[in-house]
This record gives sequence, C-alpha cells and structure tokens, in this order.
Amino acid sequence: MTRGADGVDIEALRSALADGARVVADPALSDALVHEIAAVAGRPVHREPDDGPAPLVHVGPALPESLRRGRHAGRLLWTHSTNAGVDALLAAGPAPWPERVLLTRTVGRMGERIAQYVLGWVLADCQDVPGFLVQHRDRVWHRRPGELAAGQRALVFGTGRIGSAVAAALQRVGVHTTGVARTPRATPGCDRVLSLDEARGALAGARWVVNALPLTPHTAGLFDTALFTALRGAAFVNVGRGESVDLRALDAALRAGHVRSAVLDVLPDEPAGPDSPVWDLPRTVVTAHSAGVTADADVAVDFGACWREVAGGHHPELAIGPGAGY
Amino acid sequence: MTRGADGVDIEALRSALADGARVVADPALSDALVHEIAAVAGRPVHREPDDGPAPLVHVGPALPESLRRGRHAGRLLWTHSTNAGVDALLAAGPAPWPERVLLTRTVGRMGERIAQYVLGWVLADCQDVPGFLVQHRDRVWHRRPGELAAGQRALVFGTGRIGSAVAAALQRVGVHTTGVARTPRATPGCDRVLSLDEARGALAGARWVVNALPLTPHTAGLFDTALFTALRGAAFVNVGRGESVDLRALDAALRAGHVRSAVLDVLPDEPAGPDSPVWDLPRTVVTAHSAGVTADADVAVDFGACWREVAGGHHPELAIGPGAGY
Repeated sequence: MTRGADGVDIEALRSALADGARVVADPALSDALVHEIAAVAGRPVHREPDDGPAPLVHVGPALPESLRRGRHAGRLLWTHSTNAGVDALLAAGPAPWPERVLLTRTVGRMGERIAQYVLGWVLADCQDVPGFLVQHRDRVWHRRPGELAAGQRALVFGTGRIGSAVAAALQRVGVHTTGVARTPRATPGCDRVLSLDEARGALAGARWVVNALPLTPHTAGLFDTALFTALRGAAFVNVGRGESVDLRALDAALRAGHVRSAVLDVLPDEPAGPDSPVWDLPRTVVTAHSAGVTADADVAVDFGACWREVAGGHHPELAIGPGAGY
Repeated sequence: MTRGADGVDIEALRSALADGARVVADPALSDALVHEIAAVAGRPVHREPDDGPAPLVHVGPALPESLRRGRHAGRLLWTHSTNAGVDALLAAGPAPWPERVLLTRTVGRMGERIAQYVLGWVLADCQDVPGFLVQHRDRVWHRRPGELAAGQRALVFGTGRIGSAVAAALQRVGVHTTGVARTPRATPGCDRVLSLDEARGALAGARWVVNALPLTPHTAGLFDTALFTALRGAAFVNVGRGESVDLRALDAALRAGHVRSAVLDVLPDEPAGPDSPVWDLPRTVVTAHSAGVTADADVAVDFGACWREVAGGHHPELAIGPGAGY
C-alpha cells in the first residue's frame, strides 16, 4: 500500500526523490545539521526554495507561507518537522494542511528526555531539593528526611510515546502508574489505563498528575477547576501543551491546597514575559519549554529513517495523519 | 554453628531471651516504636536498666556508658542499633566494643532511600533544578535543555547494600555504573567493579562520583587532593561518611573546576554551625544527614528479624563483626 491515511502517494514521492527533488532546510537549522541532512538525502541542501520546477522536500520547525500557500506551494511534497509537537505547524495560518503533502516529525529520544525531566522533578520534590537550597543559603543544618517515591501513585494523562515513556520512568523507581487516555488500551509503563471520565475518580489518590497529552479539541482546557479541585495535594507537572491548562483554575487550586506544587514546562502563551502572572503562581516552577528539546542528532536520525522508508516505498512510521493533530 | 565471627554465643543468647532477658530502649525512641519492640520481644520494654540480675538487650542509636563499661555492663548481651552506620557506636569511648556482645543494625529500606536520594540529586543536576529555581524567581523565560543521564558514567565507591542500591538506581535510568571496592567482586547494579587503585584510572571518565563507603581506617580521608584533582568535572555526592572526605581538598578542586558540584549529606563535624566554612564551598549543597533516615517501621522490622533468628538459634544476618567497622 503506497497511499497512507494522509492521502500521500508514497510511490510518487519515491520517484520524485529519485528524480532529484530539492531539499530545503529552514534558515534556523545549524550548519552541522544541514550537513547531516545533505548526507541523508545524497544531494545539496538549500536554505530557501529556488524558482525552478523541481519538487521540494522541506525540513524545519514551521512551514513558511511561500511553501504553504505561496508561489512554491504546488511543488511541496514533504515536510519533516524538527519538533515532535506539530499542532502549531498544522494550525498556522487560516489554510488547512496542504493536501497530499507528507508530514513527518522528529521524536528522537524525546520520550526519554521528557521522561527524565519528569522523573528529575518528581524526585527533586521527594528530596525537597528547593528546600535544601534555601537551607544551604541560610547556613542552616536541619534534617529533612526524603519521601520515597516508591509505592505512591502517578496519573499520567496521555499514553502515546511521551506518556508511555514518562510512566515507564516513574514505574522503574517504584511509582504506581495509571495512564489516562481517550481510548484506553494497555500501555507499556502503565499499571492500568483509564478513560478521561474514569480518571476523575482516581484524582484524589494521586501524588503526582502529569500531563503528556497533545493539543486537540478534546484536550484544550482539560485541566480546569473541576479537575484541579478533585486533587488531594497532588503535584502537577505539565509536559504536554500549555493550552490544556486553565492557569486561573491552577492558581486557585494551588492557593487552596488541592495542588501541592506545579512544574510547568509549557504555557498557553510562550514565552512568558517578566510581567506574566505565571511567575506569581505559588509553589510553581516554569521551565521555559526545555523538556525534551530535540537535539540536532535526533532530527538527523529521524529524517534519515523517514527518507529510507520513503525510498523503499513505505509510508514512514513517523508520519502524521493531519486529522489527528499530533 | 552458634558462635559467629564476633565471638557471640548465640545458644547462650537464645536461652537468655527465653529465660526473661530485659529489653531496654533508648529514651529517644518514640512510644510507638517501643510498643512495636515490645510486641516483637513478647515482654515489656523499659526505658532504662533496672538493678536486678537479668541479662539485658538494648535498642538504640548509641550505647550508654552504664551498659558499655558501667555497673550494668556485665549484663549486656545484645545491642540493636537503630541506625545502619555503627562506627560511632563502635568507636564511642576509649574502651573497645564489649567482648561477646552481639551488635546488630537497622538497614530497613535504607538502601532504597539513599539510592533515591542520590538519583534525585543526580537528575536535579541533569535538569538544572537549581538554575530553573533562580530563573523563576527572576521571572526569566530562558530555555535550558536538560542533559540525559543515560549513557554517562558514575563511579560508586562502596559495593555493600547501600552502594549496590545506589548503583542499581542509577543503572535503571541508563547510567553506566562502575563500583569501587577494597575487594572487588560482581555486585548487582554495577557494570563492573574496580579496586581502589584501579579506580584512580577511571576517575577522569566519571560524570558522577558517589561515596557510599563506611568509615574504616582504609576509607578515612580517601577523598583527598590526589583523588579530586584526577576528576574532569565530575559531580561529587557523599552519602557515606564525612570523615572520608578532606573538605579543604574538595574546596580547592571545586574552585579549580576538577569537581563540578558537590552534594554532601555527611560531614566530618556534624551538625555544621552557621559559621562552618562548609556553607562557603562553591556549587555545593549540604543536606544535613537526611539521606536514608531510618523510619520507626524499619527499626521494628529489622529488630524483629534479628530476634527471630536468635530465637531460632541462628546468627542474625544483620549482625556486625566488630573488627569490620560496618
């Protein structure tokens, strides 16, 4: 089968690659990465489209207007995103995703990176790293025994690659892990998986609630007053999308003690300026979208895998169905 | 065999327990713990020795002078330490450990607790938790990608229960683990185990150096100028004993950059007062001997295990050979 769920004709794409499609890399990519992309593609890589007729393959964090709807649009066959989250890429501009354009993404070691981010902040919470830093600054010797993560429960919203990796990392230190998904199915790393509705009954027993959901119409604003007030002192970690969280509801829940603390890697409005009220949320740390940043090596490896699959006539595993939003 | 390496006659001890030996708990122990000790021993537990002739079993963090050399000394048959480290207990006072007195200790979930402490601080280092706390306070949005612990190397000095648990915890997040021991032997959690001499050649390749050694004449001052200056930017974590570390050598190595940062749970002089120079060590956090604090439940469980072994005529697994120092 050469035509994927996204309507892409892989056989036509394969021929275009063989016939000398041009590869265009976003100007923001490093020279080192562009060098690796050229090695994968076996041809020079350009920083912008030329005016010739050759079909185009594009690699970058976003799709330029000239490729999406502008004068080069008809030539674009494939975009490889340098990020894992592609909702911004799909949503940018009023036009829908161009029909029959393959969209692939970089996952790389993102699951592992985000999992280690979550585990790091979960254990920093158990060991009260912030409290010891304050004590040290104040030259105070006061014993504060740590809390064992083992035996406590985390609810991980999202059971895709990221959520599954997060759950697995927590499980390896003895945390009981409950996954939460629109369509629950057995997921590596999760002791069990609940639907969004079922999860509401499990919120009170959670020591940690982690959001690893993509942004879709179903997840926008999911973490609202009703959800946060059902917590009984859980710490909240957001490595999904900022728009999933109602920050005013989180603020109230932190002040009321429903939420013990929050670690927010993502916000509805990024970057947060110095006047943003997010810095005033109690017991909260904002980490500036740093979890799971893809490294150049991740992009090169995943683009290479997609290229080889297309060249072999296969639909790439890292392809996105534009209807899915992730 | 009823006589252990420590010269204790288990059969005589077994008879004494059966014939109504008195159990004395240190006044510092909680009432709840004393209640559990009484349940294990099947007799009332006293807070200090009486003046009668009955043999004594003592449970506490240290051995009172009256039991060590004072008027009750001849009656003492067994001390169960509420801590894992017993060097203070063995060394206290000028007199040697009383001959043929059984010494057992509490290990409990100490290995797991210390392992989680080390893993927490290692991952806090990778995720730059301290840096993000400062950024947040300063209302700064600045992306700081985390560092993957996976694939990097930790040297864990000490391959006993604690060191092995620490190595295993690091190994579970993908860290390569090299154990270091006086007498190297295959150890769970360690990819390989080196002798102290061999370890010197491995110091330059370590991202983390963890001390989990007990205090003995062989380990006192082990972490000295020669050792620290052989490091190439490793972070140092001490969960062993403070006396193993020359703090002036550590200070110099931190200032010279041989040591990237230090997390010290133990110090040669505890507690550190506000005037202690330890608070001025650069890039260092002192955590006030909080790693692996044994909980009451740990003491009760381990004392119970020892009691049942003695009652069955066996030398307890948690017994210490006084010559070993740990």
